[in-house]
Amino acid sequence: MSRRVTLVSRPQGMPQESDFTLEDAEVPEPGSGEVLVRSLYVSVDPYQRSRMSQARSYARGLELGDVITSQTVGEVVKSRDPRFEPGDIAVGQLGWQEHAVVRAGVLRKVDPQLAPITTALHVLGGTGMTAWFGLFDVGRPRPGDTVVVSAAAGAVGQIVGQLARIAGCRTVGIAGGSEKCADLRELYGYDAAIDYKNDDVRAALKEACPAGVDVYFDNVGGAISGAVHSRLNIGARIPICGQVSQYNADRPEPTVHPGLLIVFRATMQGFLVTDYVSRFPEAYPRLVRWVADGTLRYREDVTDGIENAPRAFIGMLNGENRGKALVKVADPS
Amino acid sequence: MSRRVTLVSRPQGMPQESDFTLEDAEVPEPGSGEVLVRSLYVSVDPYQRSRMSQARSYARGLELGDVITSQTVGEVVKSRDPRFEPGDIAVGQLGWQEHAVVRAGVLRKVDPQLAPITTALHVLGGTGMTAWFGLFDVGRPRPGDTVVVSAAAGAVGQIVGQLARIAGCRTVGIAGGSEKCADLRELYGYDAAIDYKNDDVRAALKEACPAGVDVYFDNVGGAISGAVHSRLNIGARIPICGQVSQYNADRPEPTVHPGLLIVFRATMQGFLVTDYVSRFPEAYPRLVRWVADGTLRYREDVTDGIENAPRAFIGMLNGENRGKALVKVADPS
Repeated sequence: MSRRVTLVSRPQGMPQESDFTLEDAEVPEPGSGEVLVRSLYVSVDPYQRSRMSQARSYARGLELGDVITSQTVGEVVKSRDPRFEPGDIAVGQLGWQEHAVVRAGVLRKVDPQLAPITTALHVLGGTGMTAWFGLFDVGRPRPGDTVVVSAAAGAVGQIVGQLARIAGCRTVGIAGGSEKCADLRELYGYDAAIDYKNDDVRAALKEACPAGVDVYFDNVGGAISGAVHSRLNIGARIPICGQVSQYNADRPEPTVHPGLLIVFRATMQGFLVTDYVSRFPEAYPRLVRWVADGTLRYREDVTDGIENAPRAFIGMLNGENRGKALVKVADPS
Repeated sequence: MSRRVTLVSRPQGMPQESDFTLEDAEVPEPGSGEVLVRSLYVSVDPYQRSRMSQARSYARGLELGDVITSQTVGEVVKSRDPRFEPGDIAVGQLGWQEHAVVRAGVLRKVDPQLAPITTALHVLGGTGMTAWFGLFDVGRPRPGDTVVVSAAAGAVGQIVGQLARIAGCRTVGIAGGSEKCADLRELYGYDAAIDYKNDDVRAALKEACPAGVDVYFDNVGGAISGAVHSRLNIGARIPICGQVSQYNADRPEPTVHPGLLIVFRATMQGFLVTDYVSRFPEAYPRLVRWVADGTLRYREDVTDGIENAPRAFIGMLNGENRGKALVKVADPS
C-alpha cells in the first residue's frame, strides 16, 4: 500500500490540518513508457496554496480529493521506459504521496554524485531556476545596483541574494526574526538584513539602501513591499515572484498604486519559472558548480514523514521554517 | 502689463477656481541669450494637477504664488539670442501667462507652414511624443495585438489608438460619453469604443476583445483599469502613462494586486516622456508627415482667454473637454 495526502476541503484563510487527509492507495503499476517512483522527499512551497483555491490563476486548481501537487525526488522502482532503471534517482511533479507512476518524459534524472539529492527540490531545481531567471531576466541587475529581496531567507530568496552578490550588487534581505536575519548575513552573505518582525522596516531600509533600490525581488507583497517601493531609484525593476502575504486572503487586496511606477519610471513584471524551461540549461551547470565549490550556500528545514506534510506546509506559510521546507518520506534503498 | 495665473491655495480634491488667481505683472525684459515670448495658446493637461500637490513626484511641485506650469506656443517679441527673431513662432514651458522671458535654449521653433501652430502643444508636441514612446517603447505592440486605451479620446489616447492601428493592431478605446465614443470610432478609427459612463465595462471589454488584451495603455487607473486587467493575455504589457482617476485623491489608493502580474506574466511600466527627449527626432518627422497627409487626426477643445484657464483645467479633470484642451490667449500679430 502507498500513503498520500489529499485535499478534503478548500482552506478559508490560513489552511488547517483538517483541510487535508492521509489515505491509503494501491501502489500503481507503470504502463508502457511509464515509471514507478518511490518518494524520498517531497517539497513544500507557497504556490501550493494557490492551487487549493478556485481563484483564477496560471494553473488549474486542485479538485477536492486530489493529491496535493508538489515536486518530489524519489527512487525508480520499476521502469517501462528505456531512459530509467530501478535505483535511479529522479525528480518530477509527483505530489505528496509515497508512490507515483508518471510518464518517463516528465521525470528528470538526478545525479547523486553531483550534490545531495534534496537540492533537486531547491537550488538545483525549481527555486534555483526561479531565482536565476527572475533576477537576471526580469530584474536585470548591474554591478553596483542595490538589490532588495523579500522573504530573503526562503527557498528562492536565499539564492537570489547570493546570485546578486556574485553579479556585483549590494544585497539587502528582509526576513522575519533574528535567526533568519543571522542566516541572511552569515550564511547567504547579504550586505544587510532587515527583520520585519522587530525592525522599523522603513527606517531600516533607509539605512541599508543609502543609494536607493534598483531591483526589488518581491516574494511577499503587502506592507513590506510598500516600504520598499518608496525607496526605488529611477528605472527600478520589480520582479514579482510571489505575493505570499496575500495567499490566504479570500480576495487579495490591491497593494500597489501604479502612479508610483510613473514617479520612478519603474517596471513591475510578473514571471513564472515554467516559462523558462527551455532555457534551464543556461543556468543549471553554473548552479551545480557553485553548489559544489561552496559559492552557493543553502539551508534545508526537513520534516519527517509524509503524514506531516500538511503541518510543514502550514508552518511554512506562517514563516516558521528556517531554510527550504522539505518533507522526508523515506530513505533511499 | 501682462496677465498671469498663479496658485493661491493647494487644491483639496478637485481644484476650485478659487485655488487660482489672475494677476498683473510687468512685461519682463530679456537678458543676454534670452527671448521675450507673447503667448498665443497655453496647454491644459492632467499632469498639472500633480504639480499643485506636495506629494513626492518626478518634478518639483509649485510653490504658492507660482505661475501654473504649462507648455505654451507663442510669438517672439524680442530676442537677445541669434537663434530667434521677432515674429518667430516657438513652443516652450512658459506657463499660464501672457508674456514670458526664457533662455533661447529651452525654446523650440515651430514652422507654421507645417501644421497649425496649436499642434505643437499636442500631436506634434508632448502628447504626441508620449503616445509614440509609451506605445512603441513600453507597450511594444505587434501586428494582430489587441491594444486597449483608457482616456482614449484625450490628448494622448487619441494618438495612441491611431498609432496602434497603423502598426496593425486591433484598437479598443474607453472614454466617457457617447460623443467621445463617436469620435473614437469615426474620427480616430478605433475598432471598438466603450463608454464607461453608460456601458457595463466588463461585458463590453469581453465583447470588444475576443482574443484578450495584449497592450493596455493606461491613462486613468482605478476601476476601469481593474476591468481591463482581468482580460490580459499572457505576456501583456501595461504602459502606465497617467492615473487621472487618482489625481484628486489626498492619498492615492492602491489599485493593483501584483499577483495578477504573475498570473498573466504581465509587465506594468511607468514612463515619462521627458526621458525620451533625445529620441524625439525618431518620431517627429513621421508624426509631421501623418498629420500633413491626414493619416493622423485630432480634435481640439479651445477655451478663450487666459483668465479662463482654471475653468478649462477643472473641466478637463472632469472629462468635459472633447479633444485636446487648450486655452487661446491671443491672436498672432
